[in-house]
Amino acid sequence: MNYRNMEVTVVKIGGNVIDNPDDLTLFLKKFAALPAANKILIHGGGKLATKLAAKLDVPTKMIDGRRVTDSQTIEIVTMVYAGLINKSITAQLQSSGCDAVGFSGADAGIITAVKRLPYPVDFGFVGDIPDDGVNSTRLTAFLNMGLVPVFCSITADKQGVLLNCNADTIAQSVATALSSAGARVKLIYCFEKQGLLADVNDDNSVIPLITADNCEKLKAEGVISAGMLPKIDNAFKALNTGVEEVIVKSYLDLDDNDKGTRISRKS
Amino acid sequence: MNYRNMEVTVVKIGGNVIDNPDDLTLFLKKFAALPAANKILIHGGGKLATKLAAKLDVPTKMIDGRRVTDSQTIEIVTMVYAGLINKSITAQLQSSGCDAVGFSGADAGIITAVKRLPYPVDFGFVGDIPDDGVNSTRLTAFLNMGLVPVFCSITADKQGVLLNCNADTIAQSVATALSSAGARVKLIYCFEKQGLLADVNDDNSVIPLITADNCEKLKAEGVISAGMLPKIDNAFKALNTGVEEVIVKSYLDLDDNDKGTRISRKS
Repeated sequence: MNYRNMEVTVVKIGGNVIDNPDDLTLFLKKFAALPAANKILIHGGGKLATKLAAKLDVPTKMIDGRRVTDSQTIEIVTMVYAGLINKSITAQLQSSGCDAVGFSGADAGIITAVKRLPYPVDFGFVGDIPDDGVNSTRLTAFLNMGLVPVFCSITADKQGVLLNCNADTIAQSVATALSSAGARVKLIYCFEKQGLLADVNDDNSVIPLITADNCEKLKAEGVISAGMLPKIDNAFKALNTGVEEVIVKSYLDLDDNDKGTRISRKS
Repeated sequence: MNYRNMEVTVVKIGGNVIDNPDDLTLFLKKFAALPAANKILIHGGGKLATKLAAKLDVPTKMIDGRRVTDSQTIEIVTMVYAGLINKSITAQLQSSGCDAVGFSGADAGIITAVKRLPYPVDFGFVGDIPDDGVNSTRLTAFLNMGLVPVFCSITADKQGVLLNCNADTIAQSVATALSSAGARVKLIYCFEKQGLLADVNDDNSVIPLITADNCEKLKAEGVISAGMLPKIDNAFKALNTGVEEVIVKSYLDLDDNDKGTRISRKS
C-alpha cells in the first residue's frame, strides 16, 4: 500500500519529563493541541521502573545506559511502561479531546521485535526491531480511524515473549516504516533540554542545525559529544530512509517550529 | 449504526485461571482457536495485584469481595491488570495466530466509566459503567478490522482519572452495548468450575439451565447461593437488553457447546 499524501508527526517524549507529573501534563496538553492531521506519541520509561524495582528488592543493572532485563525486570517494566505510564498518558490525552489509544508493540501485532543475542553482553529480555518489524499497514489503519497511537517501549517477539526496547529506537523505527510506505514523516524527540547542546552546561548553546555535511566536522571538533551520538545516529537512520525532518527540542517548545536542533540530510 | 448481521462472542476469563500460567496458556489456546468471526476477551485480575500490594506494604482492603482502591492501589492494579496481565495475554494470543489488541477502557475512549460515589462505602478509585459508557461504534470498527479486543478491568472517567472496574460488569456492559447496537451477542463467563453448582462442594452438580422462570424457585430452594447472585444478575441484565445467550462454564470447556450452565430468558 502507498500513503504518498499522508503526513504523520511522530513525537517521542523522554523519561525525565515523565518523572514529573506536572511537566508531563503540560507536555500532553501541547501534544493534544498539535494541529497535525496524524500524530503518534512514543514514551520512554523514566525512573519509575527503577524505583519500583528497588522497592521489590530487584537489583537494577545498567550497561552503557541500557537496562539489563531479567525475568523479574521484564515484569516490572511491563507493569510500569505498558500499564501505569501508558494508561495514564492515554486517559489524560482522551480527557484533553485527543483520541489516544495506548499500545505496546504486541498489540494488533504492530511492532514485532527480535530478542537480542546474549553476546557480547546478555541484556536478557531486550528486543531490537528488524527492518520489517513495524506493520505500517495496520498502524496507518488506526491513523485513518482518527486515532492517535501512544506507544510504550514494550514489544514482543513472534513467540509472544515480551521484550524491553529502547523508546528512541521505536520512534525511529515507526517513523522509518511509515516513511518507507510513502508517508511524509516528521520525527520530533522531546526532552527537558532546549535541543542538542554544544556545551552540556550551557542551555543556550543549542546547535540549530546538524547535517550530514557538518556532522563529521562537529564530531571532530568535539561539539557533538558521546552522549548525543545515539540520538544523532537514530536521526540519520530515519533521514536516510526518507523521513523528512528530525527535530530534537524541549517538551515546552513542541508548538514552536523555530526552536530546537534540526537534523537534516542537507542544509 | 446498526450491526444486525454481526455475531460477536464475548468471553470473560476469571482471576483464578489467570493466577496459574499453565491454565492461562491452555485457555488462551482454546480462545485463539474459537471459530467465532468476532470475539472479545475480558480478563479479571487474579491475586497478582494483592501479592504486589503486600510486597509494597500497601494494605489490601476488600468489602463485599470488592477491592477498596486508594491512590496507591489504583497504580498497582493499573500496572498489574493493564500492564503485565493484559500484555502477556495479548502477546500470547498474537503468537497463537489470534490478532489480539489489548485495551483498557481509556484506550480509544471505548469504555468511559463514572467514579462511584463515596457513600455508603467509599471504594476510592472504583468505576461503574453507565448505560452509554461503551462506544460500540468504535468497538465494532476494531472488530471489522479483524482484531480481537482484549480488555482489562481498568477504565477512566471523562476527566482522565483511571478507575478500577469489575471485569464481570465490563463483560456484561460490552455485550449489552453491542447487542443494543444490533449485533447478535453470546456472552461466556469462564472460570475454574464446571458451571454454576447446586452444591458448591460437588463439581458434578452443575445446574444446566437457569431461566427467568426457574430462577426465583432455585433461589427459594437455596440452590442458587449468595455467591452466584452477582453473576446471575449480570447475566439477566445482559439477556434483558437483547444478548442472545449467557453461559457460565469451565475454561477447559470453552470449545464444548454442551457444557456449563446456560442462562436464558426462556427454557
